[in-house]
Amino acid sequence: MRALVYHGPGQRAWEEVRDPEIIDEGDVIVRVDATTICGTDLHILAGDVPEVRPGRILGHEAVGTVDEVGDDIHRLSPGDRVLVSCISACGTCRFCREGRYGQCAEGGGGWVLGRSIDGTQAEYVRVPYADTSTYRIPDGARDEEILMLADILPTGYEVGVLAGGVRPGDVVAVVGAGPVGLSAITCARLFSPSHVVAIDLSDERLKKAREFGADVTVNDATEDAAAVIRDLTGRLGADVAIEAVGTAATFELAVKLVRPGGRIANIGVHGKPAMLHLEDQWARDITITTGLVDASSTPTLMRLAATGQLDAGRFVTHRFAMDDFEQAYDVFGDAASNGALKVVLTRQEDEADE
Amino acid sequence: MRALVYHGPGQRAWEEVRDPEIIDEGDVIVRVDATTICGTDLHILAGDVPEVRPGRILGHEAVGTVDEVGDDIHRLSPGDRVLVSCISACGTCRFCREGRYGQCAEGGGGWVLGRSIDGTQAEYVRVPYADTSTYRIPDGARDEEILMLADILPTGYEVGVLAGGVRPGDVVAVVGAGPVGLSAITCARLFSPSHVVAIDLSDERLKKAREFGADVTVNDATEDAAAVIRDLTGRLGADVAIEAVGTAATFELAVKLVRPGGRIANIGVHGKPAMLHLEDQWARDITITTGLVDASSTPTLMRLAATGQLDAGRFVTHRFAMDDFEQAYDVFGDAASNGALKVVLTRQEDEADE
Amino acid sequence: MRALVYHGPGQRAWEEVRDPEIIDEGDVIVRVDATTICGTDLHILAGDVPEVRPGRILGHEAVGTVDEVGDDIHRLSPGDRVLVSCISACGTCRFCREGRYGQCAEGGGGWVLGRSIDGTQAEYVRVPYADTSTYRIPDGARDEEILMLADILPTGYEVGVLAGGVRPGDVVAVVGAGPVGLSAITCARLFSPSHVVAIDLSDERLKKAREFGADVTVNDATEDAAAVIRDLTGRLGADVAIEAVGTAATFELAVKLVRPGGRIANIGVHGKPAMLHLEDQWARDITITTGLVDASSTPTLMRLAATGQLDAGRFVTHRFAMDDFEQAYDVFGDAASNGALKVVLTRQEDEADE
Amino acid sequence: MRALVYHGPGQRAWEEVRDPEIIDEGDVIVRVDATTICGTDLHILAGDVPEVRPGRILGHEAVGTVDEVGDDIHRLSPGDRVLVSCISACGTCRFCREGRYGQCAEGGGGWVLGRSIDGTQAEYVRVPYADTSTYRIPDGARDEEILMLADILPTGYEVGVLAGGVRPGDVVAVVGAGPVGLSAITCARLFSPSHVVAIDLSDERLKKAREFGADVTVNDATEDAAAVIRDLTGRLGADVAIEAVGTAATFELAVKLVRPGGRIANIGVHGKPAMLHLEDQWARDITITTGLVDASSTPTLMRLAATGQLDAGRFVTHRFAMDDFEQAYDVFGDAASNGALKVVLTRQEDEADE
Repeated sequence: MRALVYHGPGQRAWEEVRDPEIIDEGDVIVRVDATTICGTDLHILAGDVPEVRPGRILGHEAVGTVDEVGDDIHRLSPGDRVLVSCISACGTCRFCREGRYGQCAEGGGGWVLGRSIDGTQAEYVRVPYADTSTYRIPDGARDEEILMLADILPTGYEVGVLAGGVRPGDVVAVVGAGPVGLSAITCARLFSPSHVVAIDLSDERLKKAREFGADVTVNDATEDAAAVIRDLTGRLGADVAIEAVGTAATFELAVKLVRPGGRIANIGVHGKPAMLHLEDQWARDITITTGLVDASSTPTLMRLAATGQLDAGRFVTHRFAMDDFEQAYDVFGDAASNGALKVVLTRQEDEADE
Repeated sequence: MRALVYHGPGQRAWEEVRDPEIIDEGDVIVRVDATTICGTDLHILAGDVPEVRPGRILGHEAVGTVDEVGDDIHRLSPGDRVLVSCISACGTCRFCREGRYGQCAEGGGGWVLGRSIDGTQAEYVRVPYADTSTYRIPDGARDEEILMLADILPTGYEVGVLAGGVRPGDVVAVVGAGPVGLSAITCARLFSPSHVVAIDLSDERLKKAREFGADVTVNDATEDAAAVIRDLTGRLGADVAIEAVGTAATFELAVKLVRPGGRIANIGVHGKPAMLHLEDQWARDITITTGLVDASSTPTLMRLAATGQLDAGRFVTHRFAMDDFEQAYDVFGDAASNGALKVVLTRQEDEADE
Repeated sequence: MRALVYHGPGQRAWEEVRDPEIIDEGDVIVRVDATTICGTDLHILAGDVPEVRPGRILGHEAVGTVDEVGDDIHRLSPGDRVLVSCISACGTCRFCREGRYGQCAEGGGGWVLGRSIDGTQAEYVRVPYADTSTYRIPDGARDEEILMLADILPTGYEVGVLAGGVRPGDVVAVVGAGPVGLSAITCARLFSPSHVVAIDLSDERLKKAREFGADVTVNDATEDAAAVIRDLTGRLGADVAIEAVGTAATFELAVKLVRPGGRIANIGVHGKPAMLHLEDQWARDITITTGLVDASSTPTLMRLAATGQLDAGRFVTHRFAMDDFEQAYDVFGDAASNGALKVVLTRQEDEADE
Repeated sequence: MRALVYHGPGQRAWEEVRDPEIIDEGDVIVRVDATTICGTDLHILAGDVPEVRPGRILGHEAVGTVDEVGDDIHRLSPGDRVLVSCISACGTCRFCREGRYGQCAEGGGGWVLGRSIDGTQAEYVRVPYADTSTYRIPDGARDEEILMLADILPTGYEVGVLAGGVRPGDVVAVVGAGPVGLSAITCARLFSPSHVVAIDLSDERLKKAREFGADVTVNDATEDAAAVIRDLTGRLGADVAIEAVGTAATFELAVKLVRPGGRIANIGVHGKPAMLHLEDQWARDITITTGLVDASSTPTLMRLAATGQLDAGRFVTHRFAMDDFEQAYDVFGDAASNGALKVVLTRQEDEADE
């Protein structure tokens, strides 16, 4: 089969590789019908994630069709159409039994696809712990919408909106209007906040933020986000701030924006520490959360997508055939110029019939 | 009357002052039967709390007898024995209506006694918003036990144990075994954790910690707290860490001690920022809380003290007559040498009859 | 002034009465600008609420203008436009301090207006505990929309939707599509359920239910609600059922509709016991709640109405001048024939200038 | 091997049967080292549980040693000492993924042992879904203490105390002081209630209740439980009532005992409906829960037993060798006369060596 292989910093190729095989009896082999590229993949390519070794097939998001099942598999059969989650959950460890699949403590659980085992940017992928790591796709759902539920939507929903405890009537500040920030904005809307304030340095992204449900936008390069929030809240501060960038500056801004009793939900992937101004915050009853997506909300989000309450499809800005994978990386790698949010790569039907 | 007056950094005197009077109709005048000194009072005397102006009577904890009531008072009558809480709650602002009395947003609410208005280290004290800021003392309760409910016990319970979400079977690390840390230890026990680990630099304080309910103690000067916790938890980490010191180092230690999914409850009063190692923590599902005591738990703690489930009295290490207030400050100011936790100052009966 | 006076079962009159006066210093006198009739008022007129004595002015909902304030009032001044809540909250009892204003244990708290003291169906009304029982109206808000926040909207939101724990993606069954059921439907939408199923015996009301946000309707006279829910949920049952009628049969239906682990929130006012089929339910992990509105959500609902997330105005089907109060009762008393949901009675401007 | 076989109402025998074998690859065969009899077994013998067919081996609680493992088993090896939970959890269905193992919706999950498949009252037992339905026993733990964690302790803890939301300082009424009620009493103590009130018709059982942690006891035959609770709570009512009998009368009493805002947690197994007095309760903000044990708390309870916070062993009143199983049934079947709480049956060492 063909797959997108990482060959060390800056080097990747869509090339012929060996087909995956069942290793553990809880595995399934999934034929990939649609996959996508995550910002994390760019970090890997930049060499920032050293545990990913050259030779690794990248990717941790897919929609596909079950091709082969291991002997332990009870919930899936060949031919089933499934969402492959970015998180593999053994289902039996302490964390899985609490629904914290992202913390799965077993060998082989948590975020492993496209990291410590071969991933989804391929014609076929081996999915471990498949009974608890894939989700049956409802009839009539569109592949590319469901694909958005593999990572970006549960991340915004769980790590941003649920951890942030968004409630009806809240003022929610979302710092960063890239794909993850947009996911947080659109998922926050599910709880009917009175205002969602998007904060970013790019007017382009802020325009997107409005389309995704922000009703106030602040370009932090030229405007004072804290002042905007203060005006909106009678000088009180936001009920919830969601950090969706991953820098010390944006985290510190998020902390600064909330009211006494407010919550800061960090989604951003950080490479460096941030300053926590406890001298200002120790008495203010704030709550800060961090987290990795568990994808425990996937069934809920599927229902919401199916009934049209969640417009998952609007993240998709570019579509490619899998054979154009390298071009897709080029486009996504320069998202700012291309206005790219999520690119979708689909299997070509004629290939399937070969 | 006589009172303990702050005269600027390093200067205090027990001296004759004017009796307090009702100013607002929600005030009561309380005759102070017992009061105590808080670590915060030492900070004020050190000049670290500049909003406290010379001339201020210090103190924010008292047990006393209602002497006079304003026209708005519905729940109190002269002669009632009451606990004067460290927090004055207007009862009508947004925060008070959520039970967040410590954040009371009205003029005159929150921590005001001994700070922006005259306090309890006096023979009489004016208590604002008294209907919602004092608590009737059950018959038969001992003054000095109830006095511990004015600040130190609700602080450990609310800001440490409740915010930390301590549950039966948890491993709870308490960083700092001063009076506030001991309060957190003793209150954590109410939820039957499997282990309470006390961490401090003083063997004396750690000995106290054992008396108050810690079953493991770690002298951080010579032992590796993280290693002790790892051994105790199968390398996982503590379920909850409570910071009860107020320095960057102790906060950073507390963060380091918790397991994925764990909680860090900060009680300490911080003068400087701390580093939050988001590069280690962003994916670990941790929750960090800060807070000022609300004293919303006072009725609960009174019931627990009354039924003997909470041994409030054991905080009291030294007792003085009020006329010896300056000596009491000397003893408490050198707590380490004197083994002092809380000092209690009581009105002399014969004075009352004058 | 004139007021709607209850003269015993079946008897009421819009007549001249004495103006109200401040009795307690926490009272205000409010000039009523708009008021409405509640289903409970019809129950009183039917003689079903014997604690309401002849001579009582009815009504517990109003929007008005503060005319006079007692000496204890801190948050209101003459001329302020306020919502008068159906619940009077002393603000200092145990229940008020937990936000359970409906259970206010003080003399004079809870639901008292138009019941144990004179109510709002009058040109002026005395409002006790006014600092904690009225809400300032935001500029630009329309009286008749805000009036819906006095009782019907917080009832559906608090006792139905919040107690029922509605979550995104839930299937919510609402039994009863009268005004309170419609309130539950519209408030459930704030949490983005996947489906709201309205169940009633009247096609007229079910049509209204669709307008208010139900996406499935079941006429219980001819259709099998349980079967509809089973089909919709893969035979599992509803996540939440909200009872909004107040009969044994509708309560028992609500219990029957939920899935294992589901919740039943009772809003209905019951005059008789219901059967709880514990032989079917003991092992099914269900939760049943009852409750009286607290109106603690009023500030939240005001924000939602102000930003257009909650269309409060659509409850208003009929409008009258206050002098036509008796006619309004006739129309509301025969709601089925008249398609009446809420009738609004407004003060005539020229009268105000007299 | 030998096993206790049900032969229809009133008939049982300890007799020779075929050894169990692995059927599904998630099974293990456990050699039973200790087992016990549950009140439910008596109901089965009385013919009250018709789905249990003659020929079935009874029992759903065991401590034992893994003898053989299916190919899907990842967490267990022959020789491991395990607790066999009363609940078999597939680990992959919707309910298992929420931790509601008792509701396990798969074929073969939930309470199946000794009901729809052969149970633990035997020398060997086949345990399905064993990775998620057994718990490794900590070194040094005593078999008969751990055995109490198979059903009775998690039932009292989860369905009674956690569902009832017991909090420090609460007044908790436990209706019924049989083994399950005693479990609720002892588990309630983990949360430091101010009072646990036990209510029963037997002075013998009430004496036991005191030993297990009740500080007030009421013999309902001669005393008025409601009056006792009113006196204890300033006429308010209990914070939590736990029903641990399973009759309409005891359920209705439990509902009557709670304060406004209180919770009623039903543990009792009911064969008939109860009356819910909504005409009294509709406005009182009560919460009623039902539930089947999930055994999700087993790891927590193991830690508590290991550290001595939970005295699991005191339930054991009688001990038998397995060959005396029929005598054990006689004793347990007449628990009132024999003062029996839990009887433990243990494998004889010499048999094991055969």
